[in-house]
Amino acid sequence: MRRWTFPLLAAVCTPALAVEGMWQPHQLPALGQEMKQLGLELDPASMADLNAFPLNAVINFGGCTASFVSPKGLLVTNHHCGYGAIQYHSTPEDNILENGFLAQSLAQEKTPVPGYKIWITESMTDVTDQVVGGLPADLSGVDYYQGVESQRKALVAQCEADGPYRCQVSSFHHGASYYLIKAMEIRDVRLVYTPSLSVGKYGGDIDNWMWPRHTGDFAFFRAYVGPDGKPAEYSEENVPYQPQRFLKVSASGLDEGDFVMVTGYPGSTDRYRTAQEVEIYFESLYPAARDLRNQVIAVIEQSSEPGSDARIKYESTLAGLANYAKNYQSMVESYQSTGFGEAKQQREAQMWAWVESDPARAAKYADVKSGLAELIDQSWQHMERDLILGYLRYAQLPDTAARLYRLAQEKKKPDAEREAGFQERDWEGIEAAMKRMDRRFDAKVEQAILAHLLSRYAELPSSERDPVIDRTFGLSADLDPQALADKLAGMYAKTQLTDLETRLAWLEASPERFERSDDPFIRFAVADYDRVMAKEQTDKRISGELLQLRPRYMAAIIDYQQSQGHSVYADANSSLRVTFGTVQGYSPQDGLWATPFTTLEGLARKATGEKPFDASDRQLTLIKEKQYGGFDMPTLGSVPVNFLSDLDSTGGNSGSPTLNGKGELVGLLFDGVYESIIADWDFNPDNARSIHVDSRYMLWVMKELDGADHLLKEMAIVR
Amino acid sequence: MRRWTFPLLAAVCTPALAVEGMWQPHQLPALGQEMKQLGLELDPASMADLNAFPLNAVINFGGCTASFVSPKGLLVTNHHCGYGAIQYHSTPEDNILENGFLAQSLAQEKTPVPGYKIWITESMTDVTDQVVGGLPADLSGVDYYQGVESQRKALVAQCEADGPYRCQVSSFHHGASYYLIKAMEIRDVRLVYTPSLSVGKYGGDIDNWMWPRHTGDFAFFRAYVGPDGKPAEYSEENVPYQPQRFLKVSASGLDEGDFVMVTGYPGSTDRYRTAQEVEIYFESLYPAARDLRNQVIAVIEQSSEPGSDARIKYESTLAGLANYAKNYQSMVESYQSTGFGEAKQQREAQMWAWVESDPARAAKYADVKSGLAELIDQSWQHMERDLILGYLRYAQLPDTAARLYRLAQEKKKPDAEREAGFQERDWEGIEAAMKRMDRRFDAKVEQAILAHLLSRYAELPSSERDPVIDRTFGLSADLDPQALADKLAGMYAKTQLTDLETRLAWLEASPERFERSDDPFIRFAVADYDRVMAKEQTDKRISGELLQLRPRYMAAIIDYQQSQGHSVYADANSSLRVTFGTVQGYSPQDGLWATPFTTLEGLARKATGEKPFDASDRQLTLIKEKQYGGFDMPTLGSVPVNFLSDLDSTGGNSGSPTLNGKGELVGLLFDGVYESIIADWDFNPDNARSIHVDSRYMLWVMKELDGADHLLKEMAIVR
Repeated sequence: MRRWTFPLLAAVCTPALAVEGMWQPHQLPALGQEMKQLGLELDPASMADLNAFPLNAVINFGGCTASFVSPKGLLVTNHHCGYGAIQYHSTPEDNILENGFLAQSLAQEKTPVPGYKIWITESMTDVTDQVVGGLPADLSGVDYYQGVESQRKALVAQCEADGPYRCQVSSFHHGASYYLIKAMEIRDVRLVYTPSLSVGKYGGDIDNWMWPRHTGDFAFFRAYVGPDGKPAEYSEENVPYQPQRFLKVSASGLDEGDFVMVTGYPGSTDRYRTAQEVEIYFESLYPAARDLRNQVIAVIEQSSEPGSDARIKYESTLAGLANYAKNYQSMVESYQSTGFGEAKQQREAQMWAWVESDPARAAKYADVKSGLAELIDQSWQHMERDLILGYLRYAQLPDTAARLYRLAQEKKKPDAEREAGFQERDWEGIEAAMKRMDRRFDAKVEQAILAHLLSRYAELPSSERDPVIDRTFGLSADLDPQALADKLAGMYAKTQLTDLETRLAWLEASPERFERSDDPFIRFAVADYDRVMAKEQTDKRISGELLQLRPRYMAAIIDYQQSQGHSVYADANSSLRVTFGTVQGYSPQDGLWATPFTTLEGLARKATGEKPFDASDRQLTLIKEKQYGGFDMPTLGSVPVNFLSDLDSTGGNSGSPTLNGKGELVGLLFDGVYESIIADWDFNPDNARSIHVDSRYMLWVMKELDGADHLLKEMAIVR
Repeated sequence: MRRWTFPLLAAVCTPALAVEGMWQPHQLPALGQEMKQLGLELDPASMADLNAFPLNAVINFGGCTASFVSPKGLLVTNHHCGYGAIQYHSTPEDNILENGFLAQSLAQEKTPVPGYKIWITESMTDVTDQVVGGLPADLSGVDYYQGVESQRKALVAQCEADGPYRCQVSSFHHGASYYLIKAMEIRDVRLVYTPSLSVGKYGGDIDNWMWPRHTGDFAFFRAYVGPDGKPAEYSEENVPYQPQRFLKVSASGLDEGDFVMVTGYPGSTDRYRTAQEVEIYFESLYPAARDLRNQVIAVIEQSSEPGSDARIKYESTLAGLANYAKNYQSMVESYQSTGFGEAKQQREAQMWAWVESDPARAAKYADVKSGLAELIDQSWQHMERDLILGYLRYAQLPDTAARLYRLAQEKKKPDAEREAGFQERDWEGIEAAMKRMDRRFDAKVEQAILAHLLSRYAELPSSERDPVIDRTFGLSADLDPQALADKLAGMYAKTQLTDLETRLAWLEASPERFERSDDPFIRFAVADYDRVMAKEQTDKRISGELLQLRPRYMAAIIDYQQSQGHSVYADANSSLRVTFGTVQGYSPQDGLWATPFTTLEGLARKATGEKPFDASDRQLTLIKEKQYGGFDMPTLGSVPVNFLSDLDSTGGNSGSPTLNGKGELVGLLFDGVYESIIADWDFNPDNARSIHVDSRYMLWVMKELDGADHLLKEMAIVR
């Protein structure tokens, strides 16, 4: 279908099209000309240096991004990235999640939440040779996989031996290259300031992925280090960390068409998958996963009264399920309406035609096409079964038991040989998970989830089912739902794993103790272990073979793209990237144009007094009285709340500082529009739009609504 | 609240603001300068002449507007205006409503539907002196009302004696002036061509009042006259009517910012009500009426299975109920968000301050303000009761019985003295209504409606209730729902009014026969007659007093407006008006801009295969293959389907030809946007937008989809 562009006005008024690409810092100098043309004023070369401004002010905030905004370690990220920490400090008596919180002094800042850490990337080193250079060409899949894993583990261990660092070896281009990423880990991170929920999550799940948007999605934390300036565990002696550089915050902001760039840690994209994979994901996997999510949502809702303790425990699970059900639904809709599948097939055919047009090239890549197709087929051979078993993790007891037994098994090996996730460096995380479990657990709800998923499993042909699972839960093709419910009730009545001390004790137990236990979930974990390990071996074999083959496929793509004069960027992999573009709207539907700024008045107009549109009376009065505090935008006639840009982003970019051409913070990226969800696979410049909190709204809330004058004074506000 | 205007681009690209005003033709020469500035190329003076181009091509299509588009009486209006006629000719075997219909020759055109007539306004004469000039100043309210009514009836009778005319005396400015409107009545109107329902009602009730819109809301009829060229009853001898002038249809259409005008018959607006009335309507009447509508909808839905015969009979009633429930809801929302109530109060206060700033003026209008307030209070004294009793008309049997008995009573008087609606000229309409009743009647549903409304009535304080109604239905404050249901079941079992022949026989019966009847609904009509008449007398007294007072209030408003340099137009009253403006979008919400054209591709994108988005495969294929037939718009890159303009319109304008500056037909007005519904009271240039079918889409459907080449040849298509 033809894509609609803004008629008439387009010719006169619309700026350049979106720039696709999530660039590694070292690639930026090559893009400098283009960035300067759009409005970059900084030296593109300086953008490549992790230890220089602005990248050294950018922080990995555990699945999100943050940035330093003062010389005393003050950092800003999204409210939704700090949500867990804010919730942790909330009590019925002092509900700071609901009401907001502002420390008036360092002493009032909230002590760190266990497990909340931040990382500042100090170096990214190409270690491809070290990882795969020594591996013989004829290794089997499993051996290649294991070979890569041991090299990665060795490099990480060596890197982390060096001090307070968290290191990882990241694969780029699906195994074509590997980088060792070394990041300083700061473990004492304290909550400084959060607006109320009615600002920070205004619009809630209803507005999630939607435009127009009016969310004040920001919160402030502070990084602390030991008195010696080095990262340290929390202590009263600790002092604010002094970052080498921090971002100035702009109070004059942007206008339509202005250059913006975002530095951050985008999680994962799939831009280089094959057409075969596109078909599998969009025609089978996403629709099936969406349906399964909606079923689990229905089960949780039916088995817990609204407002009950049980329901409250699952609110966050429900939100997560619904979030991705909406995500998959959007992708399926976009896939159907844009003809992405066909377009991908055509592009792929063009590439192979180009490959085959040259005999040498044809010979070089001869076995790639069919080999890849065969491996992908194998990966998805048991999709339905794997999907259902995967969703079983929404029942925590079987998952916990399996994890505990696996840990006991892995502990028998030397640390370096243990499976990733079960090494000594991971134990703290495993223990934290055991402690957190209760907060999201209700036995009755969990039984209902298990009963639903197991009956779905029982409907599979017997060739897809496993005798241990069938036997444990009494499954058969003509399943009696009541019998299953009784079976599960019996298991939940008997298990001791619902007790925290018991779980923690199992962390230290030997495999033999597991094998002697009569806890029904431990017994299931032990009985199921061989199946899990066999599956893992198959997965590793396929992964290993893909790790051998896909880099050659990527090499063909890169050759082809470069022959067409395109720069090539790697799929997102949670490593530091820079993306850039301009502030601009888009057409969400024929006959509608999303304009790139929303206003305080639009926020007020959404207010209903009910969550999630419960703007406070004080905020509404300030708006009604036009107390803009000097943060209004002349061409808009009001304070801009959120804005749209056409730059390339994905999950993990949340909280990323949005910078203007001078490198000043003009906003925080916090979402993408509904139509851009498919951009993880298929970036469409017509409608891939990121959503940002405007710095002027953030400053307005801080100054006019929350009186955070001392923070404003600590920060460098520029005009 | 501040109204949002399209930021940044606004300064460069947005044309002039909307022009409020529904102008009588004689006012147009005075507005010529303004119209020419916006793009009118015709001589404004010619626009004032009812018997010249273009007004003599414009037709009153019974609650809608139509226009001649060929020298052989071919006329075009909205599909929704011709809906009843199309439905009338539909049968299960030949479902032309669903599939569309195209007569290949005059002989194939569908014979007229009884009661479907059109009127061509020939003259509008100021008869204020004749209507009220002879009425003494000291008449009582009732006598003044009766005096006005007899003068009106006399003028109408004299006018209609003159030949095949339908005449009426219309009040302008709430009784400040009266015009005798003389219109030629054509009684032989045949269906020529309608697109399929999937074109003509695409988007259905979901898209009703909504933008973006993709509805092909057009249908063609032909006016026939006797062989002598004079209007005549249907006969095979009749020949196509030859209008003096007809409209050329533009195939090159409009672009954003272009001048448009609409000539038609807008029904009713309330722009000159007082602030007190605004408060009553928006804070009490509309919310209550909306709730009552929603209740009746629920009752009908609960008492009829979806898809059942009963439900099908009520579909149109349900659509009507929902339509205005949505209308009132929109008005209430707009009222709350725009502060219209306060603004109206301020404007009124300014006017009275101006009046009182001059002693002579103050004296002239001294008693108007308080007198009007007192009368308005009286009008609404029994709002809840009157509202509930008014909605009783959704039960047809009591209403039918009352109408029949009233007719018998009125027949005792000489024709000229009969109440309007019961004169000989009205009998044809009454008989037609008796015949139509069965098509929308189901006894079980009607009992459920009555039961609901009567229990609402029973909840009123006894001072608001009437003993006859209470006694007839056995109502009391502690109503037993089962007893009421049994009572109604008994009445419906016994009544003969469900039989058509019985109803028709009652048309001829004397009052005495009614008084002897034991039909329960006839008995109720007889018993309730005194209450109805007493209520009517009170209403007439208040109306008469308002007719005496409101013209003085209007005079004050007009004096004030003219002192401010404003032209003044009268509220819509179903008489011929001209409005004008330009093609332009608006902001439906902060962060969104409605662009003024939709496209074929947008239509295809809405297609789900399910009603009301069931575009045919053939249509979708034509769109996919970009078979635009030369009707595409260069700046849009596609065929425009619907467009927005800022001109002033309301119900009754449906089907109106939309003309460009040369007087060529560029579209048909068929709706307004959701945010403009309150414009009947409060015209806001920022969001009052009319929705039109683009002539290019109409021509595209005719040529590419339906092969109506012979009609295109008959019409004058210009570029």
